[in-house]
Amino acid sequence: MKRVIIVGAGFGGIRAASALSGKGVEVLLLDRHNYHLFHPLLYQVATASLEQESIAYPVRAMMRRWKGVSFRMTEVCGVDLDQRQLKTSSGTIDYDYLVMSAGSISNYFGMESVQRHAFDLKKMEMAVGLRNQILGSFERASRETDPEVRRALLTFVIVGGGPTGVEFAGALHELMRHVLTKDFPELAATEKRTLLIEASDCLLTPYPEDLRRYTLEKLQQMGVEVMFKAQVSGAETDRVLLADGTIIPCHTLFWCAGVSASPLAKDLTAAKAPSGRVPVEPDLTLPGHPEVFVIGDLAYLVQDGAPLPMMAPVAMQQGLYAGKAILQKIAGTPVAPFRFRDKGIMATIGRSAAVASVHGLKFSGHFAWLVWLALHLMYLVGFRNRLVVLINWAYDYLFYERQVRLITREDEAGSCKKS
Amino acid sequence: MKRVIIVGAGFGGIRAASALSGKGVEVLLLDRHNYHLFHPLLYQVATASLEQESIAYPVRAMMRRWKGVSFRMTEVCGVDLDQRQLKTSSGTIDYDYLVMSAGSISNYFGMESVQRHAFDLKKMEMAVGLRNQILGSFERASRETDPEVRRALLTFVIVGGGPTGVEFAGALHELMRHVLTKDFPELAATEKRTLLIEASDCLLTPYPEDLRRYTLEKLQQMGVEVMFKAQVSGAETDRVLLADGTIIPCHTLFWCAGVSASPLAKDLTAAKAPSGRVPVEPDLTLPGHPEVFVIGDLAYLVQDGAPLPMMAPVAMQQGLYAGKAILQKIAGTPVAPFRFRDKGIMATIGRSAAVASVHGLKFSGHFAWLVWLALHLMYLVGFRNRLVVLINWAYDYLFYERQVRLITREDEAGSCKKS
Repeated sequence: MKRVIIVGAGFGGIRAASALSGKGVEVLLLDRHNYHLFHPLLYQVATASLEQESIAYPVRAMMRRWKGVSFRMTEVCGVDLDQRQLKTSSGTIDYDYLVMSAGSISNYFGMESVQRHAFDLKKMEMAVGLRNQILGSFERASRETDPEVRRALLTFVIVGGGPTGVEFAGALHELMRHVLTKDFPELAATEKRTLLIEASDCLLTPYPEDLRRYTLEKLQQMGVEVMFKAQVSGAETDRVLLADGTIIPCHTLFWCAGVSASPLAKDLTAAKAPSGRVPVEPDLTLPGHPEVFVIGDLAYLVQDGAPLPMMAPVAMQQGLYAGKAILQKIAGTPVAPFRFRDKGIMATIGRSAAVASVHGLKFSGHFAWLVWLALHLMYLVGFRNRLVVLINWAYDYLFYERQVRLITREDEAGSCKKS
Repeated sequence: MKRVIIVGAGFGGIRAASALSGKGVEVLLLDRHNYHLFHPLLYQVATASLEQESIAYPVRAMMRRWKGVSFRMTEVCGVDLDQRQLKTSSGTIDYDYLVMSAGSISNYFGMESVQRHAFDLKKMEMAVGLRNQILGSFERASRETDPEVRRALLTFVIVGGGPTGVEFAGALHELMRHVLTKDFPELAATEKRTLLIEASDCLLTPYPEDLRRYTLEKLQQMGVEVMFKAQVSGAETDRVLLADGTIIPCHTLFWCAGVSASPLAKDLTAAKAPSGRVPVEPDLTLPGHPEVFVIGDLAYLVQDGAPLPMMAPVAMQQGLYAGKAILQKIAGTPVAPFRFRDKGIMATIGRSAAVASVHGLKFSGHFAWLVWLALHLMYLVGFRNRLVVLINWAYDYLFYERQVRLITREDEAGSCKKS
C-alpha cells in the first residue's frame, strides 16, 4: 500500500486527507498542533469576541470519518527528497507521496526589534496573547498615574492595510468603543487611539477602487486613524518608530504587513520565488519530483499572469486537487493541471459593514456583512463550534457585549516583589 | 464616604460587593484576575468538557450593575491592621472597612516533590495545564515505542477522595472511555488506568454511608481503581511514590487531598487554626478589629460543634452577611451573629450518576444528577455562559463527545533540536 504523508492540518492539508481517505492508501497527517485552526477568525479571538476553542477543531475528531488516515502530533524538521524521507521531532518517516502544506509565517523583513515586540496572527497562542495584551493594557492604564504613560498604553498600532489589518482595526475599535469604555469609566478622559499604518497609498489593494474608498471612509468614520505611505522601522516596549523619524508612544504593536512561506521551503527548492515560496509545476508538484506536492501558502504558481494569492480558498482547492492527483498517479491516469477558480474576496470592517468583490460584482454594507457572517459560519468545522460562534456574534450584535474578555496571562496583576 | 476594600472576587467577594453597591459607600474590589471564576466546574475544563471562558465572568461586566463599586486588578501583598492599610503590587490603599475573601491554596504538607509535579484545581491556568497534560500524554503515548513508557503515560493518579477527586476521576474516566479510545485506535492494546488514592478508608467523608457506598460502587463499575489507606509520599516526572514503598509508574498526578488558607492569613492572626485559617468572631470580624471581616475559606468559625467547611455555599452566605453587616455598623444598628444555613451537599460521579444529601434526605442516580446540572447552571454567572455550558453538556450527553480537546501547550509536539 502506498504511503502518503501530509504536512500540516490547515485548509489544504485536511482537504487532501479527506480526498485520500477510504481510497486504499495509507495516509499520515502531521501537525504540530492537535487541531485544525480556522485562521480567518483569529482576529476575533484577539479582540475578545470568540473563545479559542470555537474556531479550532480536533484533528482526531475529523479523522474518525476518514478511513485509512492516521495522525501524529509532531514538529517537522526537514525533508530528504532523494531518500523520500521526512525528518520529524519524533523520528524519520518514509513516504511514497508527500503533500507539503506547511503554510506561512510572518515576515518582518529583518527588523528584529519589531519581531521581538510585535504580535501577529499566525498562531492561536499569539491571538490569545494579543487579547491579554489589549485587555491588560487597559487594566494597567487604570492603575497608572502618569497621563503620558496611560495614553501610550491605550494607543494601538496596526501595521498593514490588507484584509487582516482592516478587520482587526475595526474589531479592536468596536471592542474599545462599545465594551471597554463601559468597563473602564475611570479612563473616560484618556484618549484611546487605533492607528492603521500602511506603506502604500491605499487599503485592501486587490479590491476595486470604490470598495477601497468605502472601507477607508468607514474606518475613519468609526474613528480609526489611517496613515498612508508610512513605514515602521523599529519598536521598543513603549514606542513604535517610523522610517521618517516619527515616534509613536504605544505599548501594543500588531504586525500584518508581510508573510513568507514556512522555513521548510528551503529543503524543497533552491529557487527564489517572492515571499520565499516554492515554485511548482502546473500540477503542483516539485520540479523533478512528481511524488512531492506543494500547496497553499508554501506554493508559488502563476496563473493568468499573476501569482496565486496566499489565501485559504487557494489552499482548499489545491488540497482537494493534490489528493485526487495522487490517486490518479497511482492509478496511472493522466493528471490535468491545477486551475484556481476565484469565487471572490471579502473583508469585514465592523458592525453591518463589509466589502465583497465577486466575479466583477461589488457589494458593500449590510448585505455584504451578512454574507460574510454566513460564509464564515459555513466554513467553520463542527456544528458545536458554529453554534457557539453564532451565540457570541448574536450577543455582540444585540448587546454590544463581548463576554470572552478574560486576561489569562499569569503576571498581569503585578508582583509583590517589585512594590 | 466610608471606603470598603474587598480582597478577592470569588463567591464571597462578589456577594459582599453586590450587597454594598448603591448604598452610599465607596467599594473597591481587588483581584489578581479580571474574572470571577466558577470553581466547581474547573474539573470539567481540565477534562475537556468546557472551555475556560464559559465558567469565568469578567468582574468589570458585573460591576456595571453595581453603583459605587470599582475594580482593580492587582496582587495583594499584605495588610497593616494598625494603619488600616492594604499593601498591593500597585501601591498602598487606606480602608475604613476590609473584607478579606482571599480563598485558599493547595496544601502539600511539605512534600516538595509532589508540589513540583502535581496539578491541582485552584486556578484556571492549572485546569488548562491539566487538560494539556492529559491530552498531551495520549499524543506522546501514540508516538512512543516502549510499551512500559506508553503504559505509564496512560496512568493517571488522583490523590484525595473528596468531591473534587470523585468528580475528576469520573469525568477523566469517561473522557478516556468515550472519546480518547476513539481518537487513538493505535492505543487500543495499551491499558489506561485511573487511580483514585485516599488516605482514609472511605470516599466523600461527610456523606451518609449508603451514598458513599453508591459512589464507590459506581466508580468501580466504571473502571476507576480506588485505593484506600494509601498515602502519597513523593513524585517524579514518571512515577508516584507511596508511603508503603509502592512505586506507580505514571506521568500525571492530580492533587486534591489538602487545602490551606491563603498565605495572607499570617497578616491577620497569630492564632493557629486548622488549615491555617483565621479564627473569627461570631460576626465574622477579626478579634479586636471590628472593621475587618474575614470570610470564605480564609475564615475559621465553629458552628454547632464543627468548623464550617471550606465550600462555596459558606463563602456565598458569608459574603452577603459581611456586606450587610458593614452597612449596619455604619448605620449604628446592631449586627446579629452569622449563621450558616446548610442547603445540602452534592457531587457528580459521571453520566446520570450523582449523590446528594439535603436536610436528611438522600438522593442518588439520575435524579440527583439532573438536579446537580440544574443547580450548577443556575449559579453560573451570565446568560451566554449558561448557554455555552448547556450546549457542551448536551453534546457530551448525546454524542459522547467532548469537543474542547485542544492542546494549547507550545512545546507539546517536540522540538527538532532534540532529534
